[in-house]
Amino acid sequence: VNAPTRYAELRARLAEITDLERASSLLAWDQQTMMPPSASAVRGAQRATLAKIAHERFVADETGRLLDDLAAWAEGLPYDSDEASLVRETRREWEKERRVPASLREEMTHASSEAFAVWVEARRSSDFARFVPALQRNVDLRRRYIDCFDVEEPYDAVLDDFEPGMKTREVRDVLGRLERGLSPLVAEAREREVDTSFLRGDFPVDEQRRLDALIVSRFGLREGAWRIDPTEHPFATPLATTDIRLTTRHFADRLDGVFATMHECGHGLYEHNVDPALERTPLARGASAAIHESQSRLFENLVGRGRAFWRWLYPEMRRSFPELARVDVDAFHRAINAVTPSLVRVEADQVTYGLHIVLRFELEQEMLSGRLPLRELSDAWDARMKECLGVDVPDAARGVLQDVHWALGLFGYFPTYALGNVISVQLWEKARAAVPDLDAQIERGEFDALCTFLRESVWRHGRKFPPRELLRRTIGGPDPDPYLRHLAALVS
Amino acid sequence: VNAPTRYAELRARLAEITDLERASSLLAWDQQTMMPPSASAVRGAQRATLAKIAHERFVADETGRLLDDLAAWAEGLPYDSDEASLVRETRREWEKERRVPASLREEMTHASSEAFAVWVEARRSSDFARFVPALQRNVDLRRRYIDCFDVEEPYDAVLDDFEPGMKTREVRDVLGRLERGLSPLVAEAREREVDTSFLRGDFPVDEQRRLDALIVSRFGLREGAWRIDPTEHPFATPLATTDIRLTTRHFADRLDGVFATMHECGHGLYEHNVDPALERTPLARGASAAIHESQSRLFENLVGRGRAFWRWLYPEMRRSFPELARVDVDAFHRAINAVTPSLVRVEADQVTYGLHIVLRFELEQEMLSGRLPLRELSDAWDARMKECLGVDVPDAARGVLQDVHWALGLFGYFPTYALGNVISVQLWEKARAAVPDLDAQIERGEFDALCTFLRESVWRHGRKFPPRELLRRTIGGPDPDPYLRHLAALVS
Repeated sequence: VNAPTRYAELRARLAEITDLERASSLLAWDQQTMMPPSASAVRGAQRATLAKIAHERFVADETGRLLDDLAAWAEGLPYDSDEASLVRETRREWEKERRVPASLREEMTHASSEAFAVWVEARRSSDFARFVPALQRNVDLRRRYIDCFDVEEPYDAVLDDFEPGMKTREVRDVLGRLERGLSPLVAEAREREVDTSFLRGDFPVDEQRRLDALIVSRFGLREGAWRIDPTEHPFATPLATTDIRLTTRHFADRLDGVFATMHECGHGLYEHNVDPALERTPLARGASAAIHESQSRLFENLVGRGRAFWRWLYPEMRRSFPELARVDVDAFHRAINAVTPSLVRVEADQVTYGLHIVLRFELEQEMLSGRLPLRELSDAWDARMKECLGVDVPDAARGVLQDVHWALGLFGYFPTYALGNVISVQLWEKARAAVPDLDAQIERGEFDALCTFLRESVWRHGRKFPPRELLRRTIGGPDPDPYLRHLAALVS
Repeated sequence: VNAPTRYAELRARLAEITDLERASSLLAWDQQTMMPPSASAVRGAQRATLAKIAHERFVADETGRLLDDLAAWAEGLPYDSDEASLVRETRREWEKERRVPASLREEMTHASSEAFAVWVEARRSSDFARFVPALQRNVDLRRRYIDCFDVEEPYDAVLDDFEPGMKTREVRDVLGRLERGLSPLVAEAREREVDTSFLRGDFPVDEQRRLDALIVSRFGLREGAWRIDPTEHPFATPLATTDIRLTTRHFADRLDGVFATMHECGHGLYEHNVDPALERTPLARGASAAIHESQSRLFENLVGRGRAFWRWLYPEMRRSFPELARVDVDAFHRAINAVTPSLVRVEADQVTYGLHIVLRFELEQEMLSGRLPLRELSDAWDARMKECLGVDVPDAARGVLQDVHWALGLFGYFPTYALGNVISVQLWEKARAAVPDLDAQIERGEFDALCTFLRESVWRHGRKFPPRELLRRTIGGPDPDPYLRHLAALVS
């Protein structure tokens, strides 16, 4: 075998698969932003076709033959070379995907698209019982999926889809320490009165858009390589390192949109800054869901809810929204960091957010192990909300039906949100050490040094390394203490 | 063989191919309307991949086996059943595509993308000599393409790509009669002075957009099944019968945009009204380039430059553009139908337009036969422009380099524009016979009866029939006399 030739063949094969996946992402982005609504049914079929063809090509025997032919050659190359990384990561992914029969995968896709439709209706009428059979089907199929793998405990298999190589016991440890640290902070926060009244008011959407564009370009997405559009739920879709699509939402009576924009911009910056040499390979993505989330949270919370940032932007903000004239920057900063236990995860503050995740992580394990009959899920949810956050859940729509994940069959995803928060603060501490005058720079609206640090330590590598290895090279491993210290400062 | 099962397999296979083609169309639409410019290179690769995979799947042996298994069954079905049509048209297309080696197809794609880049530069500097080698390569490859087929004359092979089954001698006959009829009309038009000064002025783009939306929805594109966006060159891209993407352009100092909108809307209405039973098949498209163009021209010229149409819209138009207050509807109608020989095809009036096509049709035949050395093409162009239209070509940019077609290797396309014009008037006469008070309806802004006629006779069939058969069922065959009568009325 001529390794360079075979490697070129592998790259060409993976480039085509990546093209199909990106085209599929464009179909999805377009569906949320541009598509005329009548086209939904056909669009669903189009997306399913592209996903199927990409998957077929990836799991094909020929991919395996290429990997076999390249195994010895790749092992002789430096671990962090592009070539060794592509062969290693493709092999890992290929072996994993090959374990799942195509028929099961199709059943899962079909069931989740049906469950999604049921969930929409059930949430509208706040009727959990209606959702139970569809959820049961998703859970049953997910159990069959888990059976395809040799794992210590069932949850390992679903977690691995989002955090390759991470074990449930590690998550349990981190989230356990997080929960123990958060409970006293929540209690402390309850004692504290923060005026947030001025976050509701008259905030013209055009001005919000102008500020968004200013922030995104200052954060460092290069001109001509991104766009931002309004959607009901904000998201980031990279179609190439040179084509980052962000979405956000604006309400004329509140300022939440700017934080959604910064969050999505963090996701976008990550894939925008992957080494261009990895373009059109499966490595031109983020390393894992948690590491992706660490970037979005870093820009949303550590930059975007920080005092330094608002010292820079607040004068501009006041020009846009004259009614903020009566509010000084410190009051504004306190308000956007206020802590109040609430019902809905996506609206939760930084301190209580982690408890929403702990609850979901526990319930998911119980659902997948069968310890919790699904008909009891709603009551279990409500009881734990009361216990963890002290809030009464008035209806299923604002309770167990609030998130789309389980309807889509996404189990194992929720913990990555909390891990992302944890990792974001660890990286932030490293960035502060690397850039001693970081606060001063941010107060001047300068983000270059921060981005250089993140590019060198995280972004440029894309998905070359498993998350554990990437973290080993930067922060060691997930540790909730820095995050807890950051939160403690918010409520003190 | 179980025919229904095999037919379901054929449909599933063609549905996936159609999905790939539609996704490719979305990549192209997005590139023109939404894509950040930095993404061009990757986007080119993404489009090439989807085109390649769709083509591979179509020409695969398995497609042929399905067609073989279904041949006898399909022949027993009514000619115009969906099943017989799908098998028959797929067989025709499959046999044609199989004749062309993949390597030649790749060379053609590659050469045309290089020639396009050269053409952009050559046109910018109006330097024909610079374009000659790239054009020569396109012509040489097109000759090799022609050699793949058994044809009476070389041009038949390229014409067939756009007008399946049509022969060059038929086009020569129609265009010859057209040319003989047009020359005296052009002479007559020269004698006639028409005031068009008020077509330049202050026409705010927002108002033009408002009028466009009004027209498109009145013409009959269903709410929630279309959108319109600005681009440099207007086009229509159907992504499904329920997802029609139109583009147009507006200049703040003239009203050309509204005619571009009506033109593209005609294309859009065609594919919007294909029988939904044909969705996700290769039949959910127009029957040929000429028949597509007949629909766009019908709405642009026969509806959109007609007196009845402006009796309806002109009051609204005047509200949008107060400076038209001094111009009555008859003067406006005369102005938008004025005839003036000019240099550029896409800006030509209805009468002289055909002569631009005759010239290109003749030159293409001479290029492909080798009778005309390419270095003489520019001079030949200029001489014929003088002879046919009496205009002096000042530079190659406004002469032989004005169109993109030859740079893209598109030979055989130009005549379909003239055929479309010819067919549009024949269909228009049929529509007037079927809907006796058509003018009165249009004067009230009612287009339902017109659309019903077109839907029943043309639109719903999609690509089920070869163009010859579709025309046989409606107008017989292309005949330039009605078109010439229509044009004569414009200059009288």
